[in-house]
Amino acid sequence: MDELAINCELATRICVGFLHDEITKFGFSRGVLGMSGGLDSTLSAFLAAEALGPENVLGLFMPYTSSSPESLADAEEAAAQLGIQTKLIEIGPQIDTYFDRFPEAERLRRANKMARERMTVIYDQSQAWDALPIGTSNKTEALLGYTTLWGDMACAVNPIGDLYKTQVRQLARHLNIPQQIISKAPTADLWQGQTDEGELGFTYADVDQLLYRLVDLRWSTEQAIAAGFDEAFVKRVQRMVMNAQYKRRLPPVAKLSQRSMERDFRYSRDWGR
Amino acid sequence: MDELAINCELATRICVGFLHDEITKFGFSRGVLGMSGGLDSTLSAFLAAEALGPENVLGLFMPYTSSSPESLADAEEAAAQLGIQTKLIEIGPQIDTYFDRFPEAERLRRANKMARERMTVIYDQSQAWDALPIGTSNKTEALLGYTTLWGDMACAVNPIGDLYKTQVRQLARHLNIPQQIISKAPTADLWQGQTDEGELGFTYADVDQLLYRLVDLRWSTEQAIAAGFDEAFVKRVQRMVMNAQYKRRLPPVAKLSQRSMERDFRYSRDWGR
Repeated sequence: MDELAINCELATRICVGFLHDEITKFGFSRGVLGMSGGLDSTLSAFLAAEALGPENVLGLFMPYTSSSPESLADAEEAAAQLGIQTKLIEIGPQIDTYFDRFPEAERLRRANKMARERMTVIYDQSQAWDALPIGTSNKTEALLGYTTLWGDMACAVNPIGDLYKTQVRQLARHLNIPQQIISKAPTADLWQGQTDEGELGFTYADVDQLLYRLVDLRWSTEQAIAAGFDEAFVKRVQRMVMNAQYKRRLPPVAKLSQRSMERDFRYSRDWGR
Repeated sequence: MDELAINCELATRICVGFLHDEITKFGFSRGVLGMSGGLDSTLSAFLAAEALGPENVLGLFMPYTSSSPESLADAEEAAAQLGIQTKLIEIGPQIDTYFDRFPEAERLRRANKMARERMTVIYDQSQAWDALPIGTSNKTEALLGYTTLWGDMACAVNPIGDLYKTQVRQLARHLNIPQQIISKAPTADLWQGQTDEGELGFTYADVDQLLYRLVDLRWSTEQAIAAGFDEAFVKRVQRMVMNAQYKRRLPPVAKLSQRSMERDFRYSRDWGR
């Protein structure tokens, strides 16, 4: 039995109901999201279309000059299947006009700038369309820190952030997402031939099994090793999870007053709705 | 007696110690911040120079095409007084190449895109310089929501976020920040003649007195009105504070697992440091 197996009917109902509630209670009826042609954003789009109706969802295609045409084609196919609105907004001009001044910038700087540029485009388009930005990050990447802070993690509401990557795939299958999106290797599509698993040095199947035990079941290092996980792998993943904690909390503020935000002034995000 | 009066010696010691600790415990020794020539970012720069040494602080000047030359001159003067590093990175090219495609975009969309572009530049430069981004938002604007989400509010560490605007001014005076920066009208410098107080429709002096009572002293609406605050003013400010709550909390994620981030998985931001 795979402990990461989820009840797809129930998970779909929870995600769809959540999206609908979190958007409508703030007085909105529409959602915007970036669609890369990958699994996570396609699943979010499917859930959003179900929650809001396809006419109320805008999928943004935001390729960079070097993004693969197949990724765009996959995103277009998924959007067409759903019947949602779409818009193509290339980020090449903004990114290039910035890095022309910093030609020495390495790949990681460029990747982060692109992720953040896409966030700014999603927010701008959401403002123009009177919609809320819908998140597309999963639990695996948030735990590992394999994301850009204030970039792909920034959104108004995230339906899939509590699902491990392998669970995202289960749900995607259940919802009949185009087959080539489910079967292709996950990639941030930043350079030719890049794959998440090649860059991380392990597979999502393996790391999800480990993360589930460490995080959800609260196993110790020793328990994980005793159960057969490679010691170096366990220690590396634990280090990654700890090192990325800053990406999952708001920035600290010097405490000076009687009631500081997030410490003493702690109303819920939907206070008064 | 002014209840917003602070002990400037003590507040400086707290802010400086906080900045030093929060940066060095993550293994960094340097900080980067945007300097607009306004009061908040100048105060943050003074505190950062004290905490890290001026040679370890990089002030970024990021004017847009329509930003006032006086603002830049003020930022340059403050940086020169401190002896910190500086860099001029204009955001005009990136912003214009984006909005050339959306000529109908109104002022507020442009203002938000600019605030977010500056965030992406600060983060990119921080990566290049092995430094952490230092925040420059105060408590008044965070409470009122007079900020851009994932824009000026995004940072790694904020020394002044628990100070009301009038307290920022007190501390700035104490630290001998250039006089013209203290006495000029606060502005986001988005268009000619813009001032915060003109746009908000009330003064910082007034709203800080009210916010302090509502937030720090937990006064009710009735208490504030009985004490002489205008009823419409009280209700408008309360509405602003509530409407902006979403900017002060992380986005909600559909709860699906045993341990979800920020709900059950709640380690501190500096977990393991």
